[in-house]
Amino acid sequence: MKSFVPKFSLNKNNNQPLKLIPLGGVGDVTKNMYIYEYGDDIIIVDCGVGFPDEAMPGVDLVIPDISYLRDKKNKIKAILITHGHDDHIGGLPYLWPELQVPIYTQKLTCGFIRTKFTEFGLPKNSIHEVKISDKLTLGAFNISFYQVSHSVPDSMGIVIETPVGRIIHQADFKIDWTPVSGQVTDVGRVANLGTAGVKLLLLDCLRVEKPGFNPSEKSIESSFEKAALETSGKVLITMTSSNVSRMQQAINVAARLGRKVALVGRSFENNFQVARDLGYLHVPPGVIIASDAMSTFPANKLLILIAGSQGQAGSSLSRVANGEHKLVRIGEGDSVVFSADPIPSTETEYNALIDSLTRIGVNVYYSAVTSNLHVSGHAAADELKLMINLAKPQYLMGIGGTFRHNKLFAKMAQDMGYKQNQVLDVEDGDIINILQNDIKVEGKIEVQNIYVDGLGVGDIGSIVLRDRRLMSEEGIIVTVISLDPQTGKMEGEPEIISRGFVFEALATDLLDEAKQVVKDSFRQHSKGKLDWRFLRKMIEDDLEKFLYKHTERRPIILPVIVEI
Amino acid sequence: MKSFVPKFSLNKNNNQPLKLIPLGGVGDVTKNMYIYEYGDDIIIVDCGVGFPDEAMPGVDLVIPDISYLRDKKNKIKAILITHGHDDHIGGLPYLWPELQVPIYTQKLTCGFIRTKFTEFGLPKNSIHEVKISDKLTLGAFNISFYQVSHSVPDSMGIVIETPVGRIIHQADFKIDWTPVSGQVTDVGRVANLGTAGVKLLLLDCLRVEKPGFNPSEKSIESSFEKAALETSGKVLITMTSSNVSRMQQAINVAARLGRKVALVGRSFENNFQVARDLGYLHVPPGVIIASDAMSTFPANKLLILIAGSQGQAGSSLSRVANGEHKLVRIGEGDSVVFSADPIPSTETEYNALIDSLTRIGVNVYYSAVTSNLHVSGHAAADELKLMINLAKPQYLMGIGGTFRHNKLFAKMAQDMGYKQNQVLDVEDGDIINILQNDIKVEGKIEVQNIYVDGLGVGDIGSIVLRDRRLMSEEGIIVTVISLDPQTGKMEGEPEIISRGFVFEALATDLLDEAKQVVKDSFRQHSKGKLDWRFLRKMIEDDLEKFLYKHTERRPIILPVIVEI
Repeated sequence: MKSFVPKFSLNKNNNQPLKLIPLGGVGDVTKNMYIYEYGDDIIIVDCGVGFPDEAMPGVDLVIPDISYLRDKKNKIKAILITHGHDDHIGGLPYLWPELQVPIYTQKLTCGFIRTKFTEFGLPKNSIHEVKISDKLTLGAFNISFYQVSHSVPDSMGIVIETPVGRIIHQADFKIDWTPVSGQVTDVGRVANLGTAGVKLLLLDCLRVEKPGFNPSEKSIESSFEKAALETSGKVLITMTSSNVSRMQQAINVAARLGRKVALVGRSFENNFQVARDLGYLHVPPGVIIASDAMSTFPANKLLILIAGSQGQAGSSLSRVANGEHKLVRIGEGDSVVFSADPIPSTETEYNALIDSLTRIGVNVYYSAVTSNLHVSGHAAADELKLMINLAKPQYLMGIGGTFRHNKLFAKMAQDMGYKQNQVLDVEDGDIINILQNDIKVEGKIEVQNIYVDGLGVGDIGSIVLRDRRLMSEEGIIVTVISLDPQTGKMEGEPEIISRGFVFEALATDLLDEAKQVVKDSFRQHSKGKLDWRFLRKMIEDDLEKFLYKHTERRPIILPVIVEI
Repeated sequence: MKSFVPKFSLNKNNNQPLKLIPLGGVGDVTKNMYIYEYGDDIIIVDCGVGFPDEAMPGVDLVIPDISYLRDKKNKIKAILITHGHDDHIGGLPYLWPELQVPIYTQKLTCGFIRTKFTEFGLPKNSIHEVKISDKLTLGAFNISFYQVSHSVPDSMGIVIETPVGRIIHQADFKIDWTPVSGQVTDVGRVANLGTAGVKLLLLDCLRVEKPGFNPSEKSIESSFEKAALETSGKVLITMTSSNVSRMQQAINVAARLGRKVALVGRSFENNFQVARDLGYLHVPPGVIIASDAMSTFPANKLLILIAGSQGQAGSSLSRVANGEHKLVRIGEGDSVVFSADPIPSTETEYNALIDSLTRIGVNVYYSAVTSNLHVSGHAAADELKLMINLAKPQYLMGIGGTFRHNKLFAKMAQDMGYKQNQVLDVEDGDIINILQNDIKVEGKIEVQNIYVDGLGVGDIGSIVLRDRRLMSEEGIIVTVISLDPQTGKMEGEPEIISRGFVFEALATDLLDEAKQVVKDSFRQHSKGKLDWRFLRKMIEDDLEKFLYKHTERRPIILPVIVEI
């Protein structure tokens, strides 16, 4: 393969810096989005969503903060997408309408994005398919691609030839010499780039804690077959809904054993449909059945691919476990195979789901007791070292990990001979100035979490979330006081209503006393000129003290004064 | 050792069953409490607390439901405690005041219970120390004990000789031939009991998923030493605050390397004090310093034992990481050693704490990247098999695990040759009738979770928790309507106040429209005779529909009607 020579490489006098700004994905596993800006040209790599943690109750998704781009929209040449996972494409339906720029990525990823755009009623003519061998010129940037293995087909590395040197943007990948998709990481291409010279390599560091190499995705199929052979009833397999290679392996097993395959869960059905339509799944005729046709087959002729591998409340598999699913009923003799490991934030729900399934008599296969049910899609330490040795970059930057991953990544690079200043120590919002002879982190833009909750995007912030957390731990007390504005006196009794504080029927004495506290507080603080804000604050304080003394709880207190 | 012959063993005509009722700890890792009832005699084994999960926001602790015992208090002869962990003793300060019966356990456990009783202002004269060789006669029960290894010294198995046969109650234990405490599991005694005949063995099944044997606790000390030798500044070690053997190993390392040891965290200080006073810790003179004396020593002369090994918000280590601790400041050159693995429900906080520490430049040692930092206190599968082979019980029952552990435990026993009916398949509240020739699960008592929140015990229930969860995800809307009872008409405008719903400043239009919805709803439904409950329900429904349509959120709606 001929190496790709950047057209600016001879311009030695170029002192204008390239700005690289991560909006998400650095010190942060998800909502990947990176800005490359040179003069009047901007390209964006990835546009993902993040997932809420416990400090964000009720939040559905977190999207990157694109405030920095608001006055630079006409500079943006394109969004390049590395692969079709939600933490790399999920932000598009929310942010593309504002940016309205072309999107470039490989075929399957285009398919997944089109599905999202259809759901959101967005036009799809900006979604452009690239072949892995394509080259693009986007303003000052010359772009090429190379194939990598990952847990979804059509994942790629992006080579960005810039006026200040060559950058490789390598998001999620792994080394798998026998991937089910046939898409092996193109180590030869990376080696050629390394020989030609690489200024900066951005590299997926999520699994740097794991020594050695990952096993191949192919190791899963025999585990599925073993589970199916051991099961006299239905076999349910759950996995990430975009894991097309794993779906393929389940379908292979079903076809060999004469079981029919049904897909349960909207994301599963959507992704299956896209992958099959685009030729990424090879399905023998007659193997797939509609999910509502399951009841016409005996249990031992069914293999069901089902969503909900993390135990998420409300997911298809959770509803099956609770006996609430309208199409799938399971019990003694049936098996559920978890072809996914829990991620830290879902471990409790994951284990609870295994317990619920066990309780209804189902045989559960999961990683703690069965081997080869899941392999990670992310490179382990020795795979990272291989990529670094192939690309031989002058500078390195870990992406897609948290702070501890970045630190271990830096340590690993230093063990390989890199100096401390050659491994960029950055976080979201940092402005990385890349010059021909140097890279400096200079300045920072403010990036916030933008929360999506229901139909609202960005309409809830830290105060709303703080209130939600407080109410969830301590409840709320509303007290309503009627006031005669003529006399400044309270009319009748104050009302006290609580939610999430105490079981009111058990606490009538406490709430009656609380009324008296409100009355006393009102009387004491309503002398002279009435300042309602002050009065409300005093009542809140007095009631808080009273309630804390008697319960050691601090509910949110909401005094409402009604003028009559 | 002479085997212990129950005095009733020759009474072959005894047809009265022994009732065994687990109130907590079966299908449930924590709040261990078991009732053994024979005729007019009851003994209780353990009295633990449980810890809240995500479905119990704001709950501090969960305690066992002792409703069944309320009319049988005069039957209860004693509470026997297996060891000093909170899931076995933590319920005592809440439940002992109602039961007022003698408590029997070994010395260190007595010490821990005394500390709790002191904090709660309870009398301590019912706490009785037993030696491991002691025997007790408690009504129909003859009790003896044997030593086991666990992650706290003075853990024991309880042998209960009953009129219907011998029962071994083996809560948390492990096999460790070189425990730091010197307390090896007394396999010889268990073998003797097995030879004499064991009807039923209750056995800690929490780690049945783990194949093989645990490493010895002793393996930890060299890891501490290595970390300390690699650290130029302060060394902080965090672990479960009751793990006396591990404290000992940290102290040994500090003494060898010339570091002073300070203890940070109330539970740490309490447990250290009790263990040292009772002779369970061997501390060379001058090694321990008061925590407020730390500032007088250079960083490289300090080793700090600190609470908060699960990343719990508000714990000492979390406050240190946030720079909020008044005595401990750390940064570059300092190390934190996590000598505890995360438990499923704390994994997110645990990882976040490692990230925060990494971010401030601290070197963190944790299990994903360093070996021999923690060993489990619970028997792995082959240790369980050893105990079963020694005790050779007629029947088996897994305790201290969830449903999946119980199922795997049953499977393991069947692999060893037990029949399905020999492994009891039970859950909390089941009444297990033990007869001389049979064991039957017959009937069930209702056991609820009793929640402790602040000073309240049992005053919050499922409705309060449901409201808390709803408010945490969707927020609350309060609407106040003033009504003239003479005319039945609304006076003025309704008020709308929200918390945790939207950022109000951004949503004035929405909230203004919502007022109109309330007015329209009032007008429509306030015709004829006024039924306030009906009116409130109608306003709630109309407002809910309106808000869901515009936000896809469903806050709790609280209409308040004020008569003026």
